[in-house]
Amino acid sequence: MNIGVLGTGVVGRTIAAKLAGLEHNVMIGTRDPDVTMSRTDPDMYGSPPFPVWREQHHDIGLGTFADAAAHGEFVVNATAGAVSLDALGAAGTENLEGKLLLDIANPLDLSRGMPPTLFVSSTDSLGEQIQRAFPGVRVVKALNTMNAFVMADPSLVADGDHSVFVCGNDAQAKEEVAEILRSFGWRDVIDLGDITSARGAEGYVALWLRLWGALQVPMFNIKVVR
Amino acid sequence: MNIGVLGTGVVGRTIAAKLAGLEHNVMIGTRDPDVTMSRTDPDMYGSPPFPVWREQHHDIGLGTFADAAAHGEFVVNATAGAVSLDALGAAGTENLEGKLLLDIANPLDLSRGMPPTLFVSSTDSLGEQIQRAFPGVRVVKALNTMNAFVMADPSLVADGDHSVFVCGNDAQAKEEVAEILRSFGWRDVIDLGDITSARGAEGYVALWLRLWGALQVPMFNIKVVR
Repeated sequence: MNIGVLGTGVVGRTIAAKLAGLEHNVMIGTRDPDVTMSRTDPDMYGSPPFPVWREQHHDIGLGTFADAAAHGEFVVNATAGAVSLDALGAAGTENLEGKLLLDIANPLDLSRGMPPTLFVSSTDSLGEQIQRAFPGVRVVKALNTMNAFVMADPSLVADGDHSVFVCGNDAQAKEEVAEILRSFGWRDVIDLGDITSARGAEGYVALWLRLWGALQVPMFNIKVVR
Repeated sequence: MNIGVLGTGVVGRTIAAKLAGLEHNVMIGTRDPDVTMSRTDPDMYGSPPFPVWREQHHDIGLGTFADAAAHGEFVVNATAGAVSLDALGAAGTENLEGKLLLDIANPLDLSRGMPPTLFVSSTDSLGEQIQRAFPGVRVVKALNTMNAFVMADPSLVADGDHSVFVCGNDAQAKEEVAEILRSFGWRDVIDLGDITSARGAEGYVALWLRLWGALQVPMFNIKVVR
């Protein structure tokens, strides 16, 4: 399948590499590919600059947000939450209309120090903001509840025996995302409900950030036991 | 140990009965014991009126919030989050000062329909509001992340193989709460950090509410796998 991944950070890279490894035809989108390819310093999380990563992933295309969205039958939002609406605007409604958008972004506010707070919570969510801004896009919130490496390979923690959530208004779109998740190795995919349930998946991130601080390692997840 | 439990709803009753069963000397506190004992209708969750429950629990005392707080060496806040600060004010700073307060309440806002939203989240928490209002009280947030029956008996779900959190500024107070939790059967007690980490434990409730809707049963919890 042709897939566009918006965002060149660790989440975008990890998901793009996983999808390419599963034989999908992947293009990563960024605001300005020339700027992205001119970077020489590690990012704020210590990841190597994008050109270094790209050398190991020649099978993955690089273009603008609009190029990547136009390329994809399926589009992934892996941009930082604070710029997601802007990035999707740059991708263009005409390139997203009617398509499935897997939204992984979290509404992190880094301006108040660490751990981050959420710039929207409880009565609204970033997933809903995106769905309202792009009513013709089939938005599914998923994979925002764990570290990028665990997203792409759940077997890294507890042999994959833990849970992932899907939220969205379109049942078929959620099933398509669940299929992708199962191809990553996810076994317990829980449908939380319509896109308002993204309030739950994003609200959990407040706990995730504290667990990360308490456990001192990012390689963990939650298993819903019942 | 002498324990005061503030709140006569299902959480207060369930925790009080559990503690009394463990040979603690428990008094439940309410705003007006005469009013509470005159109730004849089930509450909004369908629980029997308090006098019916009390007949089966003669070993548990009943008094005002102030009576119960004065009685307890250890005090439990099991009131509704929206009235917790008011109830603790009625309990009286002089009856709480220096004591350990186990805060189970959640900041649920029921005014916007179901599922509830949270009246404070992300940048503050009810746990912090209580700690700020009562700086001389050793507040520990715990047990707010699951159904009341699971709180008191974790073995009801997955043989007790799941997690509970403690948040607070006083390490000794958190250890005292952990000891009580272990006496209930909890094995995985995770210290999330200082009282600001109550933002995580309370923020998770947004997910908990959606999971309840998705699973259609309240008997579940999360296990932190790592």
